[in-house]
Amino acid sequence: MNKLELESYKGVRDFYPEDYKILDYITSKWREVLKRYGFEEYTASILEPSELYQSKTSDEIVNEQTYNFVDRGNRNVTLRPEMTPTVTRMVAKKRREFSLPIKWFSVPNVFRYEQPQKGRLREHWQLNVDMFGISENSAEIEVIQIANDLMLSFGLTQNDFVIKINDRDIINRTFAELNLNEEQSKKLLRLIDKKDKINNFGEEAEKIIGQQFNYTPEIDTKLKKLIETLNSLGINNIVFDPLLVRGFDYYTGVVFEIFDTNPENKRAIFGGGRYDKLFEIFDQTPMPAVGFGMGDVTIKDVLEIRNLLPTFTPSAQIYLGNLDESVLIEAEKLAAELRKINVNVYLDFTDRKLKNKIERADKQGYRFFAAVGENEIKSKKLIIKDLKTGKEYKIKIAKIAKFISKML
Amino acid sequence: MNKLELESYKGVRDFYPEDYKILDYITSKWREVLKRYGFEEYTASILEPSELYQSKTSDEIVNEQTYNFVDRGNRNVTLRPEMTPTVTRMVAKKRREFSLPIKWFSVPNVFRYEQPQKGRLREHWQLNVDMFGISENSAEIEVIQIANDLMLSFGLTQNDFVIKINDRDIINRTFAELNLNEEQSKKLLRLIDKKDKINNFGEEAEKIIGQQFNYTPEIDTKLKKLIETLNSLGINNIVFDPLLVRGFDYYTGVVFEIFDTNPENKRAIFGGGRYDKLFEIFDQTPMPAVGFGMGDVTIKDVLEIRNLLPTFTPSAQIYLGNLDESVLIEAEKLAAELRKINVNVYLDFTDRKLKNKIERADKQGYRFFAAVGENEIKSKKLIIKDLKTGKEYKIKIAKIAKFISKML
Repeated sequence: MNKLELESYKGVRDFYPEDYKILDYITSKWREVLKRYGFEEYTASILEPSELYQSKTSDEIVNEQTYNFVDRGNRNVTLRPEMTPTVTRMVAKKRREFSLPIKWFSVPNVFRYEQPQKGRLREHWQLNVDMFGISENSAEIEVIQIANDLMLSFGLTQNDFVIKINDRDIINRTFAELNLNEEQSKKLLRLIDKKDKINNFGEEAEKIIGQQFNYTPEIDTKLKKLIETLNSLGINNIVFDPLLVRGFDYYTGVVFEIFDTNPENKRAIFGGGRYDKLFEIFDQTPMPAVGFGMGDVTIKDVLEIRNLLPTFTPSAQIYLGNLDESVLIEAEKLAAELRKINVNVYLDFTDRKLKNKIERADKQGYRFFAAVGENEIKSKKLIIKDLKTGKEYKIKIAKIAKFISKML
Repeated sequence: MNKLELESYKGVRDFYPEDYKILDYITSKWREVLKRYGFEEYTASILEPSELYQSKTSDEIVNEQTYNFVDRGNRNVTLRPEMTPTVTRMVAKKRREFSLPIKWFSVPNVFRYEQPQKGRLREHWQLNVDMFGISENSAEIEVIQIANDLMLSFGLTQNDFVIKINDRDIINRTFAELNLNEEQSKKLLRLIDKKDKINNFGEEAEKIIGQQFNYTPEIDTKLKKLIETLNSLGINNIVFDPLLVRGFDYYTGVVFEIFDTNPENKRAIFGGGRYDKLFEIFDQTPMPAVGFGMGDVTIKDVLEIRNLLPTFTPSAQIYLGNLDESVLIEAEKLAAELRKINVNVYLDFTDRKLKNKIERADKQGYRFFAAVGENEIKSKKLIIKDLKTGKEYKIKIAKIAKFISKML
């Protein structure tokens, strides 16, 4: 037999328990905030018919970055590179059954074949927030409020980030004044989207449009009013950025991005916008839609730099160790009793010495330890050692749940 | 532009919010029970190097049922059909860093190219529970306790299921007496695994071993003692089944399966066993391991037949509706205030009439409704309508969190 590799597939992650706790912390916060706004969670398979992405996802992603394959039944399948086409498909399929607006979120993993590098992996988890059925700016207001609350929920303050905002309408009006055709517009949009990554932006823009690119559009009344409303709701770190476009072809109106203000990490953390016409890919009448996506890798970097990730503790609240094999079954019964009153119990049933069981509990971050011997079994009381303070408490089995919730 | 299909990829599911709530209910119970035993959660990518499955997963799965493809960098990739090879890889990679035993669980989605039918889909979610590092039966005891508790946690009783148990050692001893070679043993195991699905079991067995197959092995002392210990821990619905083998090649010792006792659904709900030698695929010394997997589709069927799925409610605890557009911003501020004191608020900011907002809240299953007009904004009090009883309560904004937790 050949020796197999121990490494995961390139560019994806193994989540050992200590890694999983970080992912779980981030996704739990996402869910907490979205439920606070009454959004409902949905999900779907990562497998989608390939054609779903061929018209509106960006060309770069479809041609160079998707995972495509042909299944055993000769169907073209793609591992979803983003969730928006999927949620649009799901809404389009049952739109007549829904009372609008639809306020939904999801926490899918998405796949892109990219060169793995800091902040970019081949698989990441991504909060997706979408509202369907509202043409008015009340949709943008709620969605941006949520984006803001998400950042605050992680312990960030409004000094840590800025919300840049623009409207594709403003861009389109400017492009119309320049008499650009569709191809030119598309190319110019992509170029603007990459402006921070290239040196010769002016030169490249001139190549596309055949003239010098003077782009100084002004904010319009509608966007100004949206910003003012958000200000009045306490969101003050929001600024108009005429060069913000977002990469996807499907945006039609307001677009926004949350930027880190840390000078060492000045980049977009996440963003979104309005995409009223995506339903056309299903040959359906347009449906107003506003949404955004937020990735786990980027936000984790932001939190790590600022030391905002909490300290994680084990699943169990108490670590039990039987004194020796003669009391093993009784220790198992006692553990079962505790679990019945909703105490999370780790039972160390190995033949380690008591001293080593205590040491191991401490090293693994457990707060409470208790030994189980004949005395404990007879008296129905445990001597619980608080590994943080060294103090010991003699507590009746039936009262341990209360004791722990009082102490934590 | 061609019209795109609205259907998901064949054999997988779209989880609309009402479907997601069922999946969430099942996976939350899984997590609750596993944390009760102090097991830690891990996960990994669904993408794995194909070679991971080629030696120990069953031939049927690898040759006919895996999703394989070649990535843009010419690597052979498989969508995991099961989680055991992955967790073994992860443990093998860092085994020197771990203090044994390792008690882990995961809730991955797994993929098999099967003909979609009741209870069998191309993607399903699967609880995986594994313990590494224990050769003694204390591992089997804890793992089977967990399997039993999982069933009880869903509201099932010990009358609803039976735990069938066997030991590959017993099988192997019988096969040795028959002088079977490796190839014959493998074929016979597969045949026994399928015995419930075929009519001519005896005939087929004779074809493989070249003689009549008389298979009446007796339980041995070790397995008998294990069953007795489980009995003493309150697990009485456990029986020896000499024909239970489990499909995977990697099992080495005790195997068990939980069977539904409902005469209309007499089949395995889930199962597992000991697989001490799987580490050999990484050219490592064996590591004792016991585990099982439990799928979301099968348990959902079991719960649905018995009407054990709960009624689900919306994310938000209260549905707010502004009276008209003039108070919209103030209604948004009020909703934000409630969210700050941890109340989950759905704000209906549409131009629906009040009557229609109440109707919609009721239809969607919300318990509480409150209108927001000038009076409410000035008085900082809401009139909360209990949609279940029709009663109304006038409550200060600041006290609404307490009011709701008292009422629910």
